[in-house]
Amino acid sequence: MTRFFLLAASTIALAGCATVEAAPIAAAPAAVTGEDQPAPDTMRWLYGSGEAAGASIQTWRQLADYTIAVSRQRSAPRSVPLGLPDAAGGIGTPSCVAEDGTAKPFAAVFDVDETVLLNTGYEYWQALTGKGFDPDEWKQWADEGAGIAPPVPGAVTGLRRLREAGITVIFNTNRNSDTAAGTVAALEAAGAGPAVHLETLYLRGDDDMGSRKDGRRAMIAETYCVIAMAGDNLGDFADVFNADESAIAARRAMVARGEYAQLWGNGWFLMPNPVYGGWQHGSVGEVFPPATRWKPTPGAAPAIMERQ
Amino acid sequence: MTRFFLLAASTIALAGCATVEAAPIAAAPAAVTGEDQPAPDTMRWLYGSGEAAGASIQTWRQLADYTIAVSRQRSAPRSVPLGLPDAAGGIGTPSCVAEDGTAKPFAAVFDVDETVLLNTGYEYWQALTGKGFDPDEWKQWADEGAGIAPPVPGAVTGLRRLREAGITVIFNTNRNSDTAAGTVAALEAAGAGPAVHLETLYLRGDDDMGSRKDGRRAMIAETYCVIAMAGDNLGDFADVFNADESAIAARRAMVARGEYAQLWGNGWFLMPNPVYGGWQHGSVGEVFPPATRWKPTPGAAPAIMERQ
Repeated sequence: MTRFFLLAASTIALAGCATVEAAPIAAAPAAVTGEDQPAPDTMRWLYGSGEAAGASIQTWRQLADYTIAVSRQRSAPRSVPLGLPDAAGGIGTPSCVAEDGTAKPFAAVFDVDETVLLNTGYEYWQALTGKGFDPDEWKQWADEGAGIAPPVPGAVTGLRRLREAGITVIFNTNRNSDTAAGTVAALEAAGAGPAVHLETLYLRGDDDMGSRKDGRRAMIAETYCVIAMAGDNLGDFADVFNADESAIAARRAMVARGEYAQLWGNGWFLMPNPVYGGWQHGSVGEVFPPATRWKPTPGAAPAIMERQ
Repeated sequence: MTRFFLLAASTIALAGCATVEAAPIAAAPAAVTGEDQPAPDTMRWLYGSGEAAGASIQTWRQLADYTIAVSRQRSAPRSVPLGLPDAAGGIGTPSCVAEDGTAKPFAAVFDVDETVLLNTGYEYWQALTGKGFDPDEWKQWADEGAGIAPPVPGAVTGLRRLREAGITVIFNTNRNSDTAAGTVAALEAAGAGPAVHLETLYLRGDDDMGSRKDGRRAMIAETYCVIAMAGDNLGDFADVFNADESAIAARRAMVARGEYAQLWGNGWFLMPNPVYGGWQHGSVGEVFPPATRWKPTPGAAPAIMERQ
């Protein structure tokens, strides 16, 4: 039963923030600060739960099984869609044949943060202080995190299996180019390396497209046949998904239906990260469209039950 | 850049709750209520994001691929561990041979809430009101949710593939036994049915073990050879994981290492749900053990960067 008390407390706390002006001061919870304050549920789940560990282990297993199987197919290799619209406006799948007619070597392309590395150090600091994202602090963390940031559960085994199968592992991250040395060090300390800037590591600033990754994906595809991609954000697969992050229902429908939906677990692999991301928009009314809503009837018969 | 503002706002709001007594009233955010208030990040991710849709679609694909492949193996069938410790204290794997020497039929066992059905109606009500879990309201929702609760993305296709392959689909939920009719109706309206109470649907109260599911798993295993299980909570796999939900690091380590870790994506399938669950415990200090922590050095060189 304890879990429902905690669920209630955290939900009420959130609501209390939104309506704090109307709440009587006497109802405010006792001040708890520092390491004794409750962690946000998003961080409890991602960094603390066995559930998140199980989810990432299974996805790294799925990714390695899929990618190794594709690399061994006798049919002509075909790139996974890299999110670059082709001439007909569909999903972009670059050629796996080089200009000299030879087959490009196989590669798998990975985001870094919350896909390969868990940024526990930086998120601890955010949870401790309640500070929002701070680019100066984030750069420091990107430079200094080696040996603190653990691998995402399953990543070390998954990356080792890919490399043993002859598949090149390439990282494509929105950490800045000037953190390349720190990022390489963090990947290697976590057992996820090696990584070499502009060979197997691409960062924000390596081209002039900012945080958009389609350009870097195109650079990688000039040399490699990319047969799998993984990330925690839709932008890790195609920039088009993040063109309007505030269009909640449309953004979800775009990847849950039609040709893109066929790619999940089948070339594209999503590592769950409820702590931050491009999905972090939406009011109650936007997240729950009218057809999904319900309200209880007051005074119905009492019940004792849980859900889990 | 918008996303960092929102990240900052929600993190500060959480911190503001924990330390509201010390915060000056003038710093309180403007009151926003009803459907215009920001949805909690946990719900934005699970119910609104394309990321969550991708994650569940890939896991339902993985589950169906795995289970159908196992059902077609020529070797003697073997149950997936059902979390019941065997005589040696290890993982329990009931026999797949019936007392009369015949092979038990194959089954896959599923939790319902946030594994097969999304409880958007009830969670909308929680988000709208800020109320915590209320067993009376939850029973009403369990009775009335048919036609409102959508399927988890990927579930309808996954369940259809299993049934077409001759594998019996069984639901094992902690909804109460007296909601059986409403739960059957909700499953069928979402395209996840059929379900028949005490044949292919087991609920809390069907035995005397309360929310613990090992007993119901044992009942199912008397008749079926269970070759896959899926859920959003570790208790959907083995009661032992939830014996001490407050032991954050130990609970995660138990499933991320050793024999249990080998089961993720390999008989056990985890549907990510950061909205509620047995993992919903832990202070900042418990979620981030000392070795994972970091603090910035004040006054370092400024940077402009994102992460995604």
